[in-house]
Amino acid sequence: MWRTTYGADRSHGVRPDGRVHADSINVRPQAELARVFDPFEDAARNVGTRFDAPWTTNVEDVITDPAIDAVVVASPTPTHIDLLSRSLRAGKAVLCEKPIDLDLERVDTCQAEIGALADRVMLGFNRRFDPSFGDIRARVAAGEIGDLEQLVIISRDPAPPPADYVATSGGLFGDMTIHDFDMARFFLGEVVEVTATGANLISPDITAAGDIDGAIVVLRGASGALCSITNSRRCAFGYDQRLEAFGALGMLAAANQLPTSVRFYGAQSTEVAAPYHNFFLDRYTPAYRAEIDHFVNAVETDSVPVPGFADGRAALVLADAANESLRTAATVKVNA
Amino acid sequence: MWRTTYGADRSHGVRPDGRVHADSINVRPQAELARVFDPFEDAARNVGTRFDAPWTTNVEDVITDPAIDAVVVASPTPTHIDLLSRSLRAGKAVLCEKPIDLDLERVDTCQAEIGALADRVMLGFNRRFDPSFGDIRARVAAGEIGDLEQLVIISRDPAPPPADYVATSGGLFGDMTIHDFDMARFFLGEVVEVTATGANLISPDITAAGDIDGAIVVLRGASGALCSITNSRRCAFGYDQRLEAFGALGMLAAANQLPTSVRFYGAQSTEVAAPYHNFFLDRYTPAYRAEIDHFVNAVETDSVPVPGFADGRAALVLADAANESLRTAATVKVNA
Amino acid sequence: MWRTTYGADRSHGVRPDGRVHADSINVRPQAELARVFDPFEDAARNVGTRFDAPWTTNVEDVITDPAIDAVVVASPTPTHIDLLSRSLRAGKAVLCEKPIDLDLERVDTCQAEIGALADRVMLGFNRRFDPSFGDIRARVAAGEIGDLEQLVIISRDPAPPPADYVATSGGLFGDMTIHDFDMARFFLGEVVEVTATGANLISPDITAAGDIDGAIVVLRGASGALCSITNSRRCAFGYDQRLEAFGALGMLAAANQLPTSVRFYGAQSTEVAAPYHNFFLDRYTPAYRAEIDHFVNAVETDSVPVPGFADGRAALVLADAANESLRTAATVKVNA
Amino acid sequence: MWRTTYGADRSHGVRPDGRVHADSINVRPQAELARVFDPFEDAARNVGTRFDAPWTTNVEDVITDPAIDAVVVASPTPTHIDLLSRSLRAGKAVLCEKPIDLDLERVDTCQAEIGALADRVMLGFNRRFDPSFGDIRARVAAGEIGDLEQLVIISRDPAPPPADYVATSGGLFGDMTIHDFDMARFFLGEVVEVTATGANLISPDITAAGDIDGAIVVLRGASGALCSITNSRRCAFGYDQRLEAFGALGMLAAANQLPTSVRFYGAQSTEVAAPYHNFFLDRYTPAYRAEIDHFVNAVETDSVPVPGFADGRAALVLADAANESLRTAATVKVNA
Repeated sequence: MWRTTYGADRSHGVRPDGRVHADSINVRPQAELARVFDPFEDAARNVGTRFDAPWTTNVEDVITDPAIDAVVVASPTPTHIDLLSRSLRAGKAVLCEKPIDLDLERVDTCQAEIGALADRVMLGFNRRFDPSFGDIRARVAAGEIGDLEQLVIISRDPAPPPADYVATSGGLFGDMTIHDFDMARFFLGEVVEVTATGANLISPDITAAGDIDGAIVVLRGASGALCSITNSRRCAFGYDQRLEAFGALGMLAAANQLPTSVRFYGAQSTEVAAPYHNFFLDRYTPAYRAEIDHFVNAVETDSVPVPGFADGRAALVLADAANESLRTAATVKVNA
Repeated sequence: MWRTTYGADRSHGVRPDGRVHADSINVRPQAELARVFDPFEDAARNVGTRFDAPWTTNVEDVITDPAIDAVVVASPTPTHIDLLSRSLRAGKAVLCEKPIDLDLERVDTCQAEIGALADRVMLGFNRRFDPSFGDIRARVAAGEIGDLEQLVIISRDPAPPPADYVATSGGLFGDMTIHDFDMARFFLGEVVEVTATGANLISPDITAAGDIDGAIVVLRGASGALCSITNSRRCAFGYDQRLEAFGALGMLAAANQLPTSVRFYGAQSTEVAAPYHNFFLDRYTPAYRAEIDHFVNAVETDSVPVPGFADGRAALVLADAANESLRTAATVKVNA
Repeated sequence: MWRTTYGADRSHGVRPDGRVHADSINVRPQAELARVFDPFEDAARNVGTRFDAPWTTNVEDVITDPAIDAVVVASPTPTHIDLLSRSLRAGKAVLCEKPIDLDLERVDTCQAEIGALADRVMLGFNRRFDPSFGDIRARVAAGEIGDLEQLVIISRDPAPPPADYVATSGGLFGDMTIHDFDMARFFLGEVVEVTATGANLISPDITAAGDIDGAIVVLRGASGALCSITNSRRCAFGYDQRLEAFGALGMLAAANQLPTSVRFYGAQSTEVAAPYHNFFLDRYTPAYRAEIDHFVNAVETDSVPVPGFADGRAALVLADAANESLRTAATVKVNA
Repeated sequence: MWRTTYGADRSHGVRPDGRVHADSINVRPQAELARVFDPFEDAARNVGTRFDAPWTTNVEDVITDPAIDAVVVASPTPTHIDLLSRSLRAGKAVLCEKPIDLDLERVDTCQAEIGALADRVMLGFNRRFDPSFGDIRARVAAGEIGDLEQLVIISRDPAPPPADYVATSGGLFGDMTIHDFDMARFFLGEVVEVTATGANLISPDITAAGDIDGAIVVLRGASGALCSITNSRRCAFGYDQRLEAFGALGMLAAANQLPTSVRFYGAQSTEVAAPYHNFFLDRYTPAYRAEIDHFVNAVETDSVPVPGFADGRAALVLADAANESLRTAATVKVNA
């Protein structure tokens, strides 16, 4: 039996990963939600009560509790490195939400400081644990489509976040594409070139905040394979999450997913399905579960969880490169 | 080069097979539309002009013309046997629309009279030539699903015919299910039992005319395989034509077909396709073409076309059995 | 807080509903698995240990425990009436697996004995709680397809049960179609006519045991709507569970469901999906959850759960009628 | 009644558009295939015989024949401008296969020379006439998805052409993407930016010839909308031709198309469809027909056909820009 905790995310309403993790931990028989931390008392009490766990507004109660084996860091991005470092030094394993930080220099400093403890860090790139994407990844690795040549990722959010969120989130590349960058690396391995194109067609607020609200990013992997990522901050028909791996012998594709298998056939239209899942909490429910399973298992068996700290850093490098490509309107080479 | 003709169908607007055949013949380089016959001058002139062929209101012009090799009989059902017999005796091959006649006794008398000339008759069960159904039939024959155990046919017309059509058409089993009976025989071979259930839910006029407007018919083949046919005289979403062949090793299924591959994704619904084809002329266009090809080829090579006279008779036997089953609420055995 | 228990099913390996219910109860915060009963000590201990609950081989420990509010009866069919009656008389609510019993007379006797307590019985027709079927049912009720005219149910098991299971299960109509009979009633309301056709194409053992291994059953509802149920004891491609509700204005259909959204495209074939769910535990996982939710909620709010005792009896009436129709090769009228 | 001719394409086996056009002309009642020209006698005779038309190896027989109203130029690219100019000056309308020429300067010189006669030229961008793409285009124009924001084009050929074809074809951008550039303009209107990324993963011969065999090209339209084009010279599962138009209110997408609606369900896989159409002649058969219809109609009504000479030039501008972007690894601005 081991114990964990998590820092709740108070900054805005759209990223309640913390609550999802708390629920996943509760369902897992080997894990117990030992303590809920949030500097805001209402939030801490609310989550603690809901999941029948002690709660605190003082992070020291978590860091110094020797009975706690692992910490889930789902707090605002600027607090990640501090909580991650202190938890590691206190001997705990850490599951840290992406991104580690928005500043590559701070990430490198942190990496130098934590050294080998990085092996006890897992990054919250939950899509790697999506059953459909995972199935494709395994089958590509097994050679089912021959050499991978093109990866097509379409990833659109249902509605744009508030402009003040964008101001501190790292922007579209830092808070949204970062997941797709990791997915590209999941399939391509190291990325050697980034070419980004952006658009401002949706949200004047986001434009005013200096960010884009749509993008197409093209990556080249070390093997020569190409990857396109198509992003939009708005998607009328729900959360659009698709992936196609195309290779010499064929293609494996994961389509969007529907809540039921029901279709309507009427005088005006046929085969009508419901809108897709509303957003990531609905779409990636099984992925969140499987992610915690992997983390719990790594803690229990004292093995290195994947994706790890280095994967978090690599995705940030790609986000930086994409921003540079956007600024220079040129391809940016990446030192893997 | 051979020549053909056809008797236009003046009785009602919904069965313009004749015009379709005329068009198919024109497209085929080996065939020429030699003459159009219709006792109604307007109809004869209209079709003749449209397809650039001589026309006549006197059927003798067709029967006695030695330059005509083959006749397509697409006239009202009561005239089929007369036109078919006279054409055969004049040395012509015949493609006769289904059914041969509504009265089994008359069909048997005709069969006795024409004797071996029956080999020069093809019946217009055009669905056998549908590329999807034909593909399934060939793959079942090749053993792809092992022994055939269950055949599911769903066959619904878009809208009910006028009640006066039903009065002379042979009713639902005689004018509509007759195609499904032939399809069942195409897959099952001989049928040994018929169990029919009918409904009157759609058209008071059809009910008043003494016919049903929906049905589920269960057939048993000589091999023991079961088949269900689901019919409705009305279908809001177009012409519903599906078939599933289920066997020991799997299933082959033909879904409905769409005019384009376009799908709409919106806030209320996703994967929205257009309504299905409006009716048989749209849905079975390639089948009509392939049917004429088969007939033309049989005439050219002097081989026996399939389906033939005996197939037309067998479908009528099943329609009679279905009507008897409906009347007695019991399974009716059929002497194959 | 209320408490429940369940009787484990030891008779054969293929119906482990009890374990599923135990899991569902555990997940539900308002319910607690109070005790596991099984006359076989190994089974009782095994399940109790797995779900962290006390276990017993003496059913009196359950019946006489005043702290237990509700009982889930998932034992072999012959024990249902006894356990159900005793539990009810001891003041407990009961969720009883289908069928109540194989003998209609015993069911009627039981009904007379329990009287108004029948309102505290829920029958385990879990498919009513399937999200797809439930969605269709609600939309039909809301008038989305107009009057319901035809219901098509296709329901095939992946592999035949052992012949000795069939001998005591009530046969195909009693153990398998019984779910489809309930589904038909869920949509049609009362059924007034049953016409059944059976086949013996799959299992010589089942034939030797005097049962059929495939069937097509046609039902007529009081409204005049028709329903076909197509059953097979074997299905190469998994658990085939589909339903189409066809009405005056259109159709609502629930297709089979896939474990992931992944499709393979290769040189020999395209859009290749995985086999369907293996069997009912995989396919109906959410239905089992929702079923327990409904039962727990009914116990908590002291309301009448649906489907209830009368629904269990009605499905049995249809199974009897289907067997009679099979024997007489005629339609059987049912007194609703 | 008007008359046309066409120059057969002798250069290689993979572009027999000429024969397709000849067939389309023959089917159309208002048009007649007046003469077939090919400098190679075998080719000319072969096509002439097949379509029952006079043939010649002397192009003057076509140019000087006053009875010929229109010319279809389906000859090798280097001959296009010469044949097009002479035909126009001889008073004929011209349907010219893409591209007009590989050299923009020559195209501009030609344009200056023909002046207003350009209105009598139609370019062979047949995909504009594809029923699915055309349906999407019309619905986007009708506002069904609001403002167009992202266009995703996936376009893959089944197998790479011989290296010597690539050497004179204009390369991947000039002979293959040129269709997609036109499709992008069909949806986006004028294009203002081109960013291209290429790959060499398939054919060493093509690499040796200095061309790429895969690419992702990103375009920006004047409205700000983005478009990605994904190309590959090889596709194991057939001719991959898809298009998605994504806008503020939803998406319209055209999937690949299947020869039949048949699906196979077996123990290893379900919903298995056939490979897609083999190549453009199968996939775009209705588009070729509709293209000729549009051209014939324009000739008959003396109206300006679309796409025209300027559209052919614009696509060439984009191909040049893509090549420049590939060379410079930077975005290239285009003067619309």
